[in-house]
Order: sequence, then C-alpha cells, then structure tokens
Amino acid sequence: MNILENTLAAIEAPDSEAAQRAGIRLDSLTKPRGSLGRLEEMVRRYAAIRHDPQASFGRGAIAVFVADHGVAAAGVSAYPKAVTVEMLRNIAAGGAAISVLAGRFGYELIVTDVGVETDTSATPFKGVRYRRVASGTKNFLEGTAMTVAQARQAIEVGIETAHDAAADGITLIGIGEMGIANSTPAAAILSAVTGIEPARLAGRGTGVDDRVLARKIEVIETALRLHREVLGDGLSMIAAIGGFEIAAMAGVCIGAASLRMPVVVDGFIATAAAAVAGRIRPGLCEHLFFSHRSAEGGHALALEALGVRPLLDLGMRLGEGTGAAIAMNLIETAIALFHEMATFASARVSEKIE
Amino acid sequence: MNILENTLAAIEAPDSEAAQRAGIRLDSLTKPRGSLGRLEEMVRRYAAIRHDPQASFGRGAIAVFVADHGVAAAGVSAYPKAVTVEMLRNIAAGGAAISVLAGRFGYELIVTDVGVETDTSATPFKGVRYRRVASGTKNFLEGTAMTVAQARQAIEVGIETAHDAAADGITLIGIGEMGIANSTPAAAILSAVTGIEPARLAGRGTGVDDRVLARKIEVIETALRLHREVLGDGLSMIAAIGGFEIAAMAGVCIGAASLRMPVVVDGFIATAAAAVAGRIRPGLCEHLFFSHRSAEGGHALALEALGVRPLLDLGMRLGEGTGAAIAMNLIETAIALFHEMATFASARVSEKIE
Repeated sequence: MNILENTLAAIEAPDSEAAQRAGIRLDSLTKPRGSLGRLEEMVRRYAAIRHDPQASFGRGAIAVFVADHGVAAAGVSAYPKAVTVEMLRNIAAGGAAISVLAGRFGYELIVTDVGVETDTSATPFKGVRYRRVASGTKNFLEGTAMTVAQARQAIEVGIETAHDAAADGITLIGIGEMGIANSTPAAAILSAVTGIEPARLAGRGTGVDDRVLARKIEVIETALRLHREVLGDGLSMIAAIGGFEIAAMAGVCIGAASLRMPVVVDGFIATAAAAVAGRIRPGLCEHLFFSHRSAEGGHALALEALGVRPLLDLGMRLGEGTGAAIAMNLIETAIALFHEMATFASARVSEKIE
Repeated sequence: MNILENTLAAIEAPDSEAAQRAGIRLDSLTKPRGSLGRLEEMVRRYAAIRHDPQASFGRGAIAVFVADHGVAAAGVSAYPKAVTVEMLRNIAAGGAAISVLAGRFGYELIVTDVGVETDTSATPFKGVRYRRVASGTKNFLEGTAMTVAQARQAIEVGIETAHDAAADGITLIGIGEMGIANSTPAAAILSAVTGIEPARLAGRGTGVDDRVLARKIEVIETALRLHREVLGDGLSMIAAIGGFEIAAMAGVCIGAASLRMPVVVDGFIATAAAAVAGRIRPGLCEHLFFSHRSAEGGHALALEALGVRPLLDLGMRLGEGTGAAIAMNLIETAIALFHEMATFASARVSEKIE
C-alpha cells in the first residue's frame, strides 16, 4: 500500500457552499456587515476546509518536528548543532516559547524527533515522539540530503501525525519546527519553487553576520546548481535539498487536507514545507492558513509568490510554531465570535437603513 | 479642585531603565535575540509605562463608552440613532462582539453611558455605569457639540474610570466606543489634529453609500470651517466637534498615564480620542499601544501622521474596543512568554557562537 499517493487521492477541494452558509450567519450578527474583516474570512475558510457550515471547533494542536541538517557543516548557522537536541529537550520540558504558547492557549503540543543527530530514544525525553528517519540529513553540497525513500518516510510521519490528531478530536493544527541550519534548506526550497534568487530569500536565521550570510547564499546557489535536474518534482526536490522536519511538515499539510483539517503554517521554514506540499499537490494552499509574515529573509516575497496573505506581521522569526500558535488563537477567537455573538433579531437591534 | 489639571501634572515619562532591564531578561530566554519581534517590544514598553522591570501583569479591562451625536441629524450614518441604546443593551447583555471577546480573554468589561439620547438610567441595564453628561451632543453644524464644561465633565468620567480600574488591580486597559454617527466627529478631530483633509480621512463608518459619504465629507469640512478658531486647543476642540465618548476615552488615556497603566487604543474613533489627549498633553502617545489599523477611512494615514505603528492589520472596522481586546490578548501573551520561558542557563541550552 502506498500511503502518500492514497492520501493525495483522498483530498477534496474546500466546500464553498459551507463558506457561503457561514457567511449568511456572519451577516446576521450584531455588527455592520464585513466589519470583523479578516476574522470573518477566517471563519468562512475554516468552514469551507472543514466542509462544515457550523464551523464547529474541537481542539487545537501544534505539531513541532525536530531534525538536524548535514549542511550545518558548511558553517551557515550562528548556533552550534548541539542546540537542536537541547531545544528538543527544552520544548518537551515546557521551557521553549512554543511550550508556553501551547499551554496558554490550551493546544496539544505534539513534539516529534524526526531525525536529530543525537539519538535520545534509548532514554527518551518525556513527551517526545520518536520517528527518526536518520541521525540528521547529509550535507546536500556533497550529494542529496536524503534518499527519496527517506523523503517519503518523513512525509509519512507527517501524514500519520495528522491522522492521530484528527482521531484525537483536533480540528485545527499548526506546524512548526526546530533544527539548527534549517533556514538554509528552506531558502533553497523556496527559491526552487518560486524562482526568487537565493540572495533575496536567504536571511540571518538565528542571527548570522554578513560574512556567514554571504556564505549561506553561496551554499544555496551551489546546491540549486548541483541538484537542478531533480528540482521539478516535489519528492525529489525535498530529497535533494530538504530536511526531515520540512518533509514531515509537508506531510501534515497533505494528510490534514485529506482529513478536512485546516493547517496553520508557521514562518519561513514551515512555508517551505507548504511550498513543497503545493508542488506535490497543486491547490493545496487552499487548505492552509499562513500565520504570519516572518522577519526572516525574503519570507514576504515568498508568500507573495505563493499568492497567499499572512494573518499577522509581528516581526517574529523564532520558528517552533510560535507564529502559528498565535494565529490559531486568533482563528479560534473568530470562531467564538461566530458562535457566541447575538443576531440582530435575538438582540432586538435595528438593521441598516436601506 | 481641578481634576484634569491635577491628573496632567501627575504624568511622568515612561521609565526607560525598566525597559532596558526587561530587555536583559528577554535576551536571556531560550530564543535568538530579538526573534519574538514586536512581542519583545510590547514587553519592554509595558515595563517602561508601568515603571516595572518585572512587567507584572494584574488583570485587563476594556472600557466602552457609549453616547449619541447631534450630527446624526445631518444623515451621515447607515443605521438609525436608536441603534446606540440598543447596542448599549446588547453590549451589557453579552451579545456584542466586545462582550464575547472580554469574556473569552477574561477582561473586565466596563460599559459606561456617557450621553446616550434615550435615558435608561431609571430602569438601568444591568452592568452599565451611568455617567450621562447629556442626552447626546448637539449638532456641531449649528454651534458647538457641547460646552467646555461638558467636555471637561466627560474627560473626568474617563479619568475616574482609569482610577477605579487601577484600584481594582487592572494593569492594562483597552478603550472602545459605540455611538451612531461617531465616525464623523472622529474624522473631524483627526483632520484638525493631523492636517489631513477630510476627504482622505472620512470613511464609510457602518456602511454608507457614495452619496452619504460625500455628504459626510461636506459636513466635516463645514464644521472645521465653522469652528476653526477654537481647534488649536484640545479641550475647546473636543467641545466644538467632539463627542462625549471620545472625550471620555481621552480622559482614560490621561488618567491611565498618570497611574502608569498602559492603554490599548482601539480603531478609528479611539484614535481620535488619543489624538485629542496628545493635543492636551504632548507625548502622551508614549503611554499608549495602538492596537490595529482599521479599515475605516484614512485610519492608516492618521496613525502615520501621529507617528505610531499599530500592532495588527486585520481589516476590522467594528469599534466597541474589539481591536483593542485582540491586541491586549497579544500583549498579555508576550508578557506570559517573558515570565514563563526558560533561560539558556536554566534549560542548559548552548548560546550563540561568538
């Protein structure tokens, strides 16, 4: 059985009639029509993706995938590689930004080691799912980052995550990541998908200086030249220049779409995953919310090229799903307004003079 | 005793040292420096305004002021004047958007009738404070909207509100309003303060058509000509072309600043109140957060002219304090991250390679 292809075959387009019916209720609420702006759009889109004109909300979850990158050896990051496993521990222990946000908003935090260099599965961190594809990717300057079989395996980890979440009553899922050096593969992917040159996409990641940024751009340009023949196909692209966490997030996008579960995409790295998912399955962006415009590199340009408009613009560039969590809270708020506000009739409020 | 002048005299500048000390803790948290973007700025500003490097958070409140406007007689609104008292009832009864948001976020909702045309104080709505200055303002095309004594009285209602809130343990207060036709006086005030012409500031309010919008612009231009000699002074300006709810919100800004309590300003109408407060007390904007860029008229232009940058841009134009409530939730989230995240030392995470 072929999990990825079966999942892709199960994806239906969002239900525009559900959106329309939700819109009728929105217009009956005690407010001028359209005056909640993008909050109304969030409700309509949620209803459409869920095929549910009532826009019922179950629970939210944030799936954070953690992995290491062979290209870190090229010196493209401001932090040592050890930080990946240290942050895996910190996220699970509750000390990371995403841990605080998930707790605050009441979202389930699903943390998955999908390929951290240091293998901690023998004495596992509490609260971490171990779905390790390998101990980090290989350096994509010296060959492909992973095999196509590994790319498929990582994507299937994401699909499995979406299935588990849906079975648990989750109706909205955010995707985030942690992995030292992963803004380099993400920029490479976004460049390959959008055609925007690496120098306009690559950013400072966790805070590299000008010298390292120049090297990072050169690394991306070299990788795109080296692997140019396989970049047209989504699966081959992610095998060549991707990362395990990026593939897994793409898998969540694909799996969730097949389950009518809207996905909230975090920042720069998660957008690369969404772009790959959209390359594998055109039109997939219709199932996604883009949470925020990151301050990382050319994220704004990449979002524009993908034809999507983010909900927030807060100058964040942390990853982990932090932007997604904040946007999910906003979407949930919009849905609460939809359910709890009075109508003109129920509150006996006069309607517009026509 | 002169409440307004005494309050103004009690205002101190925000404490930049508190901001700096909060910044040191922000930099010790397990994230790249500055990577929480504007959330970090929110914490630093909150600490500065509170003179509290710990950025302790008590509780939030949203103060909604409701009043009617004589200029509604000029036919500048899409809804009948009766909606003001109907919405006063709806807000207090829990059916309005702001009621849902305050409940959801756990904010105290302080609803004040500061001058609704229909006097319901004899059989009061539950949950409404009655501080009625008059049964609506007069039409400012035929004289001043109110006397200077009434303007002072309305401002003092706002100052009293800030004092009551602070005494109740509130450390962050949002300001919002409801009042049919009030986008007309708000646009007039913003035009008077910023110099931007009325045609670029006036918007469709609750949804007027082109014909009514043209009339609204003409009404504002006429009013600014009629009252031009008194517009240089904040108190006289609000008496001439203001509204009771706008004056009360300006009073909250002034009162809260004297109490080291940050104010979160809602959209177009609340921004006019902040602009008046800034005219009365230059530099007052340093004590305020501007919550969102409203879709109403030239709000974006007005914010730019005031030299402030809003936190959100969600195409909202509802008023009531709805944008303020959503921004307050974001500020509170930023403060939670500041308090609850682990530090590099406590989580044993490696620091940046220098």
